This record gives sequence, C-alpha cells and structure tokens, in this order.
Amino acid sequence: MKIEILFVSGDDVDLLELTDTEVLEAVETGLRAHGDRQVVLPPKSHLSLEERHEGHFNILPGYVGGLDVAGVKIIGDYAHNHRHALPSELALLTLYHAETGTPFAILDATRLTWMRTGAVTAIGARHLARSDSRVLGHIGARGTSRYNLRYLAGIFDLDEIRVTSRRPESRAEFARAMSEELGRDVVAVDTAAEAIDGAQIIVDASRLTEPAVLVPTAAVQPGALVVPYGAVMSTEADLPATAEKFVVDDWEQAARGQFGQYTEIIRTGELVREHLYAEIGEIVTGRKPGRERPDERIVFWHRGFAISDVMLGNLIYERSVAAGVGSRLVLQSAAYEL
Amino acid sequence: MKIEILFVSGDDVDLLELTDTEVLEAVETGLRAHGDRQVVLPPKSHLSLEERHEGHFNILPGYVGGLDVAGVKIIGDYAHNHRHALPSELALLTLYHAETGTPFAILDATRLTWMRTGAVTAIGARHLARSDSRVLGHIGARGTSRYNLRYLAGIFDLDEIRVTSRRPESRAEFARAMSEELGRDVVAVDTAAEAIDGAQIIVDASRLTEPAVLVPTAAVQPGALVVPYGAVMSTEADLPATAEKFVVDDWEQAARGQFGQYTEIIRTGELVREHLYAEIGEIVTGRKPGRERPDERIVFWHRGFAISDVMLGNLIYERSVAAGVGSRLVLQSAAYEL
Repeated sequence: MKIEILFVSGDDVDLLELTDTEVLEAVETGLRAHGDRQVVLPPKSHLSLEERHEGHFNILPGYVGGLDVAGVKIIGDYAHNHRHALPSELALLTLYHAETGTPFAILDATRLTWMRTGAVTAIGARHLARSDSRVLGHIGARGTSRYNLRYLAGIFDLDEIRVTSRRPESRAEFARAMSEELGRDVVAVDTAAEAIDGAQIIVDASRLTEPAVLVPTAAVQPGALVVPYGAVMSTEADLPATAEKFVVDDWEQAARGQFGQYTEIIRTGELVREHLYAEIGEIVTGRKPGRERPDERIVFWHRGFAISDVMLGNLIYERSVAAGVGSRLVLQSAAYEL
Repeated sequence: MKIEILFVSGDDVDLLELTDTEVLEAVETGLRAHGDRQVVLPPKSHLSLEERHEGHFNILPGYVGGLDVAGVKIIGDYAHNHRHALPSELALLTLYHAETGTPFAILDATRLTWMRTGAVTAIGARHLARSDSRVLGHIGARGTSRYNLRYLAGIFDLDEIRVTSRRPESRAEFARAMSEELGRDVVAVDTAAEAIDGAQIIVDASRLTEPAVLVPTAAVQPGALVVPYGAVMSTEADLPATAEKFVVDDWEQAARGQFGQYTEIIRTGELVREHLYAEIGEIVTGRKPGRERPDERIVFWHRGFAISDVMLGNLIYERSVAAGVGSRLVLQSAAYEL
C-alpha cells in the first residue's frame, strides 16, 4: 500500500486565502471540543537550547475526537531571529490519521500559528471583553500581532487601535501595514503605557525574554480585558489573582512547562487553580458565562494549545486538497512490512 | 530569504544503500555524545489514543552538540497495524538548524528507527555480550528485528540464530527473508523458550501490549546478555535488579513516561537507580567498563532516544544531498516577517 502525504508550504497557505470567518470557526470548534472533553491534550514539551543559542522549541501534540485527527506542532522560539531576517517562530505541523498513526499532511505552520493565536485572542475577547469596547491597546508587532488586530477589528467597532513594540522601526512598519490591511488608522506609539492607557482591550503579544511590567495593574481600568501571552510575565504578578475573572485556555498546560506568562508564579504557588474562573472552552460551550458585568476586569491568558493547530491545520489540508494546492509526496511507495 | 527543506521518503532512504558500518558509526557517535554530555535530551512524551484506537505516538526531541542539529521524531505505535497492511511504527523525523530553529529536513523515519534501534542493540552487545557468543535467541519478527539480526551477525561469529514471534506465518517469513539476507541459516522456532534456550545473546523485540514473561530469569544462563525493549515487561521483574549488570540508554528517560519495558516497576519503586550499573554512553566512552567477566549476566534495556535519530537522520540527510536524492521543497519562498 502506498502512503502519500500532502506538503503544504507557507506559500501554499497564502494561496488559499482563508477567510477570517473560516479561521475563527475552525478555532472556535476546537475550543468547543476542548470544553466538551473531546480531545487528548498532553502537556506541551520543550527542547531548550537557551544555553547555546538563546532559543528553544515548543512541541505541541494533540488529538481532536470530532476529526479523529492527531497532530504535533514543532515551533522554534528564537526571539533574536530578526537578526537573521527570519521569523522568531518557524513551525511545522504534521497530521496523522488517528486510527493507524499514518501521517497524511506536513504543513508550514508559521502563519497558521499566528492565525490560530489571533483567533483565540479574538474569540476570547468576544466572550470576555465589553461588546462596546472602543480602544485596543496592543503591545507587540510581529507574528501573531497581525492576526490579533485583524480578527479583533472584525468583531469590535474600534475607534482607536494603538500599537507599540520594542523597536521603533518595527512598530512604525507594523502600524503602516496594518492601517493598509484594515483600511483604518492604526497608530504606533512609543511606550506600552501610551498604548494601553484607557484601553478596554489590552493585548500583550510582545516577545520578552526577561520579565518586565508592561501592563501595571493600576493601568487596567474597570471593564478592561487583558490578554497577555508572552513567554515570561509582562503584567504585575497580582493581576490574574485580583482581576474579577482569570481565564486560561487549559489549566494543566498553563501550570506546567518551562515557558509561559504566569508559569513562574504558578510554580512558586503565588497563582493557584483557585484563582482560575474558567477555561475558555467552558465559556465557549456555555458551561460558564463569560463577561457578566460591564466593570469586570478580566485576564485571559492563552498559552496556546495543539487543538487549535490541529483544527486549523486540518482546515488548511482540506482546503488544499479541494483547491489542488500543495505538493503530493510519496512517503513509502509500498508500506514497509518485512 | 528563501527557506528550503529536503524531504527524504522511505524509498529515498532505500536508494542510499547505507552500509552497516556507517549506520553503526553514526549511532555510536551519538551514544558517545550522550556519554560526554554533549546533548540536550528532554524526556520523551506521548500522545496516547489507547482508549479509542489501541495506539499511541511517542515524541522524541533531542539535540546533538557536535552537529549543532536539533530533531524531533514522531512515531506511532500501533501494534495491530498489520491488519491494515501497515507497519506498526510509522515515523517522521524533522531536523532543525539549532542556531535559528529553521527546519532543513523531513525524513521518513520508519526504517531509520529500525536501523538505529538495531544499531543500539548491536553496539550494546559489542560492549556487553561475551565476544565468543555463538547463539542468538531473538523474540520478535518485525521492524527493528531485521536490523538486530543484521548488525549482530556482523559483529559476532554466530553458530545459531533462532527467532520466534507470536504469529507462525510472520516468524516463518522472517526466518526465510533473514536467511537470504544474511546468507546463513536463521531458524524459526515456535516458542520464546526454544529461542532463548542456552543463548548467549537474548533479544526481546516483541511488541506485547500486556506484560508476559517471555524471558524467565532462570532461563538466563551465566554469561548471557539480555536486551529487552518492548513497551511492556517481558522478563520477570527481578531480572534487572539481580543481574550482575543492568544498563540503560538514558536513566531519566527510562524512569519516566507511560511506556517502556521496566517503566511500571520503576514507578512502583521495585527497580531504582541504585540497581543501575551504567548508561551505555558511559561504557562507549570508556568511563566505565562493559563486560568484565565471562559469567556476568547483563541486562541492557534501551528505550530508544532521539540522539540516535538525530545522528542517523543527519547522516541520511547528508548522504541524500551528496547523492541528489530526496525532494527539495520550498517552505517559504520569502521568509515571513511582517
């Protein structure tokens, strides 16, 4: 029996021109599957090369029952890759028929990661931000940032979108490109304080390598949603425990591993499960309400999980097959079996 | 900047006609790197679908300093795949430049897994079996079994090679094919007891899904080497602790995870680190002697680690490039960076 695999490059993903609606739907279906416990989601693991190269790999395995598809995403996290004119995150996703473990697709998952992350930000905001949010303060100007803005702008009637980032040239270019893409003003500001001042939606997509307070607790106004998801802490440590609601994507994932916004304060016991209001899947499936009052301050930390990757990866695979996009590869012309 | 990847299929690996010597050298270099602590080797992780499909995936990440290459192998373990005319283990290996996390190769790692596993069996035996071993008793007739026999037969002057397996048709076919491949008699026998009776080298490469005693402690004669590496225990529980030497590939790996020959008795505390004589890398690098007396009974449990995969994968990549084998794929024609 011949085993074939579809290889879908980054260029192929671009050719598909996925609509915002289909991306958001695929990712939300994954969040719902997670809420319905129709997934297998082992902890992320890491291959840490920090001592040699200031980088590490995150490895995200997952299975979605509805699709009966398993997948593993391997994604580098190299904050200084811009020096090499490379994305800080390069990712591959492989997909498998769950019944036999046979691989059927290999995807460039770099843009997929940005999209699924932006989609989780936006879906979370749909449930957790005030529906009349007018000001978005966004920290970060690479990778996932584009899709945070794009999908949030599609859901909220925003008057102001302010972005900042560490490097002036990158935030200026990001603001220019996003103004063009969204057909509305996206303003680059010099500091995180300016970006988040008075914002109802605060997203920190920055890529800090050392903890730093970009979002002071006092700057989070009543009614605000804060979505911080860097590899190290960028808010004050008291924020998740003192906000009216603290939401994550998956608590087990959040509480483990080496990297993540609040990983360190979970490790030290400062942040514990009792502080958690819900996982986002419980909210998406209606098991728990999202925002209930206009003045709640809500923190939504999504560490990112493989369920989103498998859902969006499978969509990309199906769309590629339908469109004749991608490269068909023979893995084994006759399946090995001595 | 364009990012390219070489895809090396199972057929491509076959085209390369790797010699036994180069495979053994590559794998031994990896064991040496492990002994020299020139590797990063996080624990294997698993994506377990046992509840739905009687199968699971093992995920093996690793980094080898000498090459400066990182790799992750994803391998299904589906014991019943022969029903689908598929190998029980289908594997993909991806390789990355460690400096930037950029992927550069995707390999069918099904045969690679068999080869590197057989190589570790044989290298272990070179250090741990009596050099005058004459009888090999081998349990198992699929996948790695072929390379166990092939590489062991290249190192030892064997008078008898006996093989058994669960299914009569598979062991008969395996004995026939291996007799042809090795140019000497390989005899199929009905039971494990017949296979291992009086053997100086006993290998259990069977694929049990429930523990069963295939190698009773009393059947292990003085001077014998036992190499059991199934996913569940196939010897009596007292064997590793009562043998004169108990050797593993990596104790941290061995002591963790859901699957492995002695995982359960490590979990219960019956087998502990104090029972361990050495990791194989310590022996290969000369830090500790291997076999010291002709009558020692030695148990070598290799759970398998990513270092061997990265070493052999990198060899296959380099040989493919040199031979013009494999499919060159464009991952991103212009590296993404908004």
